[in-house]
Amino acid sequence: MKHQELSNAIQTMLRLYDSNAFAKLARTTPLADMADVLEEHPVEQIARLLRSLDPSPRSALFSHFAAPVQDKILIALPADIVVNLFELLPSDKRADIFNRLNAERKELLLPALAKAERDDILKFASFPEGSVGSATTSEYATITSQLTVEQALLSLRQGAPDKETIYVVYVVNDDRQLLGTVSLRELVLAKPGMRVDELMKTNSVFARADWPAVEAAELIRRYDLLAIPVLDQSERMIGIMTVDDAMDIEKEQDVTRLSQFGGTASGGGADLSLRESSIKQLFKVRVLWLIILTGFGIITSTFVSQQEDLISEVIILAAFLAPIVDMGGNTGSQSATLVLRAMALGEVRLCWKDVWFVIKREIPVALAIAIVIGVLETILAYFSKDAMNFDILMVIGLSMMVCTAAGGIIGALLPFGARLMRADPATLSAPLITSIMDLLGVFIYFGFAYAFLGHLIK
Amino acid sequence: MKHQELSNAIQTMLRLYDSNAFAKLARTTPLADMADVLEEHPVEQIARLLRSLDPSPRSALFSHFAAPVQDKILIALPADIVVNLFELLPSDKRADIFNRLNAERKELLLPALAKAERDDILKFASFPEGSVGSATTSEYATITSQLTVEQALLSLRQGAPDKETIYVVYVVNDDRQLLGTVSLRELVLAKPGMRVDELMKTNSVFARADWPAVEAAELIRRYDLLAIPVLDQSERMIGIMTVDDAMDIEKEQDVTRLSQFGGTASGGGADLSLRESSIKQLFKVRVLWLIILTGFGIITSTFVSQQEDLISEVIILAAFLAPIVDMGGNTGSQSATLVLRAMALGEVRLCWKDVWFVIKREIPVALAIAIVIGVLETILAYFSKDAMNFDILMVIGLSMMVCTAAGGIIGALLPFGARLMRADPATLSAPLITSIMDLLGVFIYFGFAYAFLGHLIK
Repeated sequence: MKHQELSNAIQTMLRLYDSNAFAKLARTTPLADMADVLEEHPVEQIARLLRSLDPSPRSALFSHFAAPVQDKILIALPADIVVNLFELLPSDKRADIFNRLNAERKELLLPALAKAERDDILKFASFPEGSVGSATTSEYATITSQLTVEQALLSLRQGAPDKETIYVVYVVNDDRQLLGTVSLRELVLAKPGMRVDELMKTNSVFARADWPAVEAAELIRRYDLLAIPVLDQSERMIGIMTVDDAMDIEKEQDVTRLSQFGGTASGGGADLSLRESSIKQLFKVRVLWLIILTGFGIITSTFVSQQEDLISEVIILAAFLAPIVDMGGNTGSQSATLVLRAMALGEVRLCWKDVWFVIKREIPVALAIAIVIGVLETILAYFSKDAMNFDILMVIGLSMMVCTAAGGIIGALLPFGARLMRADPATLSAPLITSIMDLLGVFIYFGFAYAFLGHLIK
Repeated sequence: MKHQELSNAIQTMLRLYDSNAFAKLARTTPLADMADVLEEHPVEQIARLLRSLDPSPRSALFSHFAAPVQDKILIALPADIVVNLFELLPSDKRADIFNRLNAERKELLLPALAKAERDDILKFASFPEGSVGSATTSEYATITSQLTVEQALLSLRQGAPDKETIYVVYVVNDDRQLLGTVSLRELVLAKPGMRVDELMKTNSVFARADWPAVEAAELIRRYDLLAIPVLDQSERMIGIMTVDDAMDIEKEQDVTRLSQFGGTASGGGADLSLRESSIKQLFKVRVLWLIILTGFGIITSTFVSQQEDLISEVIILAAFLAPIVDMGGNTGSQSATLVLRAMALGEVRLCWKDVWFVIKREIPVALAIAIVIGVLETILAYFSKDAMNFDILMVIGLSMMVCTAAGGIIGALLPFGARLMRADPATLSAPLITSIMDLLGVFIYFGFAYAFLGHLIK
């Protein structure tokens, strides 16, 4: 359905506030699209619609709104509906929402919930953001290993209607320790009399609740899983993380990495959002990083200004400084991103063997590039101005060559350095290589300048 | 199982070459891990192991090897086993492998296959790499709408053992046009007598075979799907793309974007791999981009060298040029990545309303940052050298301020520009903003220099 059509349909539905109109629309329109259009309407209208719906479609629709909208809707809904929502939402989502409530509303909500739900919310709300536990849902299906396929399917039919996913069924013992997994596919296709423990796989990949969520997402991607079982410290299964959450988590990480390349990461800027963050926040996080770079820049400027005697003899030196120094950063970010990419794909790890492999590959490439760029710069410099003398061309060509080669090699090593310091290589490498090569480049440039032209200022 | 343990187990298995040893290991070890360790062994050993296995585990294991290893294994296997592999592999994977065979081997393989398989391979092999069609598998389950739940489950049990996924069952008419979807979960939980068309959802999200694969992956993520139906030009369903492929496709895209930030994208460098690409390839792709930057640099140098008269009067100008000009690029990449991030999250689209929204948010931030950085630079410059005079400090402070502000605003607009030119904003924005601000910065700097110091050279 086109956006305009959907918008009209939702207008009509909002005029009627009737759960039949909603049910009809929901059969032909994904809830995510409906939530998108509804968010353009006043919160009171959304709340009134939610009140008119049956509990199950209500919580399904509610879970598709953006976090800030959810928070506003909760304030606009009567207490009994809020309690009902919390009873039905998937446990990872309701723990998130619970964490965003203020203390007063938390206190009002908790006593109204059944004990099982209350404990569940408090358990999952206690996991820090970004951990596997915070993305874990307790809606999953378990069976015991002695059941037959027929009994297992019956038990699923009886117990599963409110489970988030039953495509993977977890076989556990009385202690809730994971023995193996069996897929709904295998259960449906197997002979009804077969026993679960003949059918189950015991090679279960799992994640721990206190791991970073991205690591569980990576396992889901690597092993093509629909969900990964989540264990606590004592090896007991506390829930699952599902593939749809894994996709969101990986996307979020990659988008974060994208902003980090722009140097907005310092000061918690990874979460900076153009739409949600205030102008004050945007300013604060961005200016911090630029102040650091200004400091670096002044060191460079001060050093260059101390070479006044040489520059005043050979003014042309000033003209070529910036582009030559920049080139080190350019080559460096090329080789750094190649290594980052290889790290992200798991082709290269932090070990001597791989560092050596990278150096062996980078040295010939960096040298070949350095020669080409050095010679090109010399030729272009020769034609850029009349009466270029040999010594000046040597300074320009040789510094370009050395800056380019050094940039390539240092850039390739930086991601390893970042890993060694347990920092995210992608965050650190891109801004650092530019700053490092700016400083180093200036030394290289004036090193050659003194070697070839130093006699002029004696 | 730890890597060393697994390695030993596989050594033992390879000594025995017996499919029971393999079956035992496969129950406790994911195939992806086994394939990883096996890849460290000679291709002949892998081929011999594969030959000893039953057809179904053989093709499952084979599909976990990396592409170059698969190609080598195929050459080492006898023709009848290759044919058998091609019969059993999922259709998206076998089409990829088929595309990598040389013409001679293609001709040998095709006549040996059954007509249905041959047609299937040729159909999917014809979709260009990176299209939805190239990631589409034809192993999916369909039912007709008049069946009861019981009949539907029976039909799945009979027809589905070789389907890649049966968690979503597609309801089609005689023309293979998609009427709706019903999940295996719903079928298992529903009353056996219910009819499929009462149960099915008709709000099916779909993708077309000729779309870019990343768009289908995005839909899978947005709508939390396990698979998306793929339609051809005449609305007929030709297959599905599954969530595990979607995760790989999105990861691949993000990793690619990472390399593009390093400026290795020009000349097809997006696929550049530190491990797989030859040193010659690495050199060629990287040097191209650096040559372009060298050209940009020479323009800057030439312009600066023409200001010789002014620089020789005020040598200190040379010392502050590079850091000030760089700052425009730094602020620009900050605002560019913020907009890129917002675009990636779908918060901002290419339309006047959003461009205006971004400008309205960026102008106050960029101005505030510019004032802070400009004042800071002036203060630092004052202390960096004795006898700084007022005019020079004005040039330094004001150019820093204008470069910073201009960088921020231009950087925020660049991703829109890239979208307008139908280029990938992430590829274009980062290298471009640096080059643009280098040139513009030099003009700004010498503009102020002439305004405040121009009288010195008259």
